[in-house]
Parts: sequence; structure tokens; C-alpha cells
Amino acid sequence: MEELKQRILKDGRNLGRGILKVDGFINHQVDPALMDACGREFARRFKDVGATKILTAEISGIAPAIATALHLGLPVVYARKNKPITMPDQVFLTLAPSHTKGVMVELIISPEYLQSGERILIIDDFLASGSTIQGLVRLAQTAGSSLVGIGALIEKTFEGGRDLLRPLGVPIESLACITSMDGDQIIFGGCD
Amino acid sequence: MEELKQRILKDGRNLGRGILKVDGFINHQVDPALMDACGREFARRFKDVGATKILTAEISGIAPAIATALHLGLPVVYARKNKPITMPDQVFLTLAPSHTKGVMVELIISPEYLQSGERILIIDDFLASGSTIQGLVRLAQTAGSSLVGIGALIEKTFEGGRDLLRPLGVPIESLACITSMDGDQIIFGGCD
Repeated sequence: MEELKQRILKDGRNLGRGILKVDGFINHQVDPALMDACGREFARRFKDVGATKILTAEISGIAPAIATALHLGLPVVYARKNKPITMPDQVFLTLAPSHTKGVMVELIISPEYLQSGERILIIDDFLASGSTIQGLVRLAQTAGSSLVGIGALIEKTFEGGRDLLRPLGVPIESLACITSMDGDQIIFGGCD
Repeated sequence: MEELKQRILKDGRNLGRGILKVDGFINHQVDPALMDACGREFARRFKDVGATKILTAEISGIAPAIATALHLGLPVVYARKNKPITMPDQVFLTLAPSHTKGVMVELIISPEYLQSGERILIIDDFLASGSTIQGLVRLAQTAGSSLVGIGALIEKTFEGGRDLLRPLGVPIESLACITSMDGDQIIFGGCD
């Protein structure tokens, strides 16, 4: 998606070691018009998968997931990383390694909002190693839901996440695929 | 706002001790159409305050803030509770007591995205004791920004937050004001 790529080139920063800073328009400051455009594009790409719910992980998945959900007319559930007091004691919980924090984080969903028979579309900000998305897939599967698609705003193809997720057999759509971040460069390329 | 009140009565739950569970449409599962309607209403109420940026706190402020920002055509900044590695070492940081966790949490904003001269509209999910919003106000003031308005989806008038914030002299708008949660009731009333 050209608009997102141009914004990454203009306001993104390669901090080295594969870390892309997009705090100016996605992860700390958010450009709602850009998110809305990305949501519209995800909605277009996933309009025929028959999703009944969008699943994401707090925190930075929330903005793109809600934008997509608005265009598809679907509810969003975001996995929590800490169990709030409003959540029942019995939950779906899995662990996923945090790419940027170097620790394992919990992904927690209340069974109230993830039920058997749902058709889940996962939307997140990044597809890198794929481990967070794989954690969301485990939660959906544990609930007896079926996965129908995976979308990410930005994919770092050199981290191998797509290879990890491909066996799931669902469409994987990224709006901007970065094939190299050597030096201080940000190089876009094909997503496959 | 009648649509929000009806939804609270239908899907909200009074868990006792002043805790209102709205996990089914705001805080864990999100109804994007309802958020969009709330955002449109905030945009209508704050259209003349001259805001240049919307400020909120992760996590559950993000959805209403982005919905409002889309209708006002403004960027959103959400205060982080943990400093990500993409953030510079010098930050704006304040502490605020977490109502539901019983501990102090950090609210952190990068100076890159909160600058002197901005006109800040704060949007959050709840106005209860007002301490989180007061923390956001401190951050805005420290940055040299001016506050132009405060909006909350749901206000619990019996927790006194409005009295705390009134001396700031800006419009305070809540879309649903709960005046009593005695027993298992949820009673709406006037916001002042």
C-alpha cells in the first residue's frame, strides 16, 4: 500500500538490529486518517473470508484492528497482557516472546468474547518473527474458533514470520513488506 | 448519549465497589460502530475548542481517542505505561494511581510528540477519580501545551473526578454519567 510505504520512508526510522521506529504515526502517536485508509485496504483484501470477529493484541494492534473492523462491520477483541479485575478467573492464556522487550509476555482473552465456531481474522501492526500472531492463533484454536486470515500493517520479511504462519493455510496480507534493514536503510519488496 | 447508555444497561455489569464492567464493548471486546458514534459525538461537542492534538492513556483510551480524532482530523498521542525501546531516554513521565489495580502506574510521553504550543484535548474511557486524566494534564502542562477540553465515555459522578478537574477551566464532557452504583444498579443522571 503506497501511502503506508511513503509514510514509513518519511517518518519511520531504522534504529538498527531490525527495529523500525514508527512511533510518529502508529505506535505512540497515531495518524487516524492513515489508520482508516489501512483499515479500508484490509477490509477490501479480506472481504470474502467470512470473518465474524477480529482479533489483535494490545497495545499497538488496537488501532489497525479497530479501523479494519469499522470497515468490515465486525467486533474486535484485543488480547490483554495483564488480567484486569473485570475478567473472570477462567481465561484463555498463552505466552509469546516479545520481540522488543526480550521477555515472554502473556496474551489473555476472556472466554466470554472468544467462542467456539467464530471465524477469526487476526490484524496486527507488525509481522516479524510471527510469534505474537502465532500466540493469537493458539488462543483462537483453543477456543474452538477457526482462523480465516492474517493481516499486518508492516511485515519484515527477513524475520521469517510468514514461513512460520504459512502452514495455517489462510491468506496472509501485509500492507508494506520490508525486505532489508541493513545499515540505516528501509528497503521495500515483495511480500512472499 | 442515549446509544451508549442503552448499551451500558444491556451489556455492562456492576461488579460492586464501583467497578463497572464494560469489557464486552469498550475494554476487551470493542464495538467499532459504537466507538465511531461516540467519536462523532465528541467531535461535535469539541468542534470549537481549537484542539491540535488528542491525548489519551493506553490501553482502553485508545479506541475512543482514535474514533474522535478521525472525526476531528487530528493526531492522537497515547501515553505509554512502559517505555518502549523506540522511545528516547529523555521523556515526560508522571505517576498516577490505577483505580482498578491499586498501584501507581507510569504515564510516559516522548517529547517528540508533545510539544510546546499544542492545544490538547484529552479523551479517555472513564472519568472516575480523575487521577489518570490529571496525570495527562500534568504531562501536557510540563510540555508547555495548553489544555482545551476533557472528554470521557463514562463518568462515575460519585467518585469526584469532575470536581478535581473543574479548576482547570476547560469544558468537561462525558457521554454517560452514572450517579449511583449501589447494589447491582447502574443509575444515570446529570453530569454536573
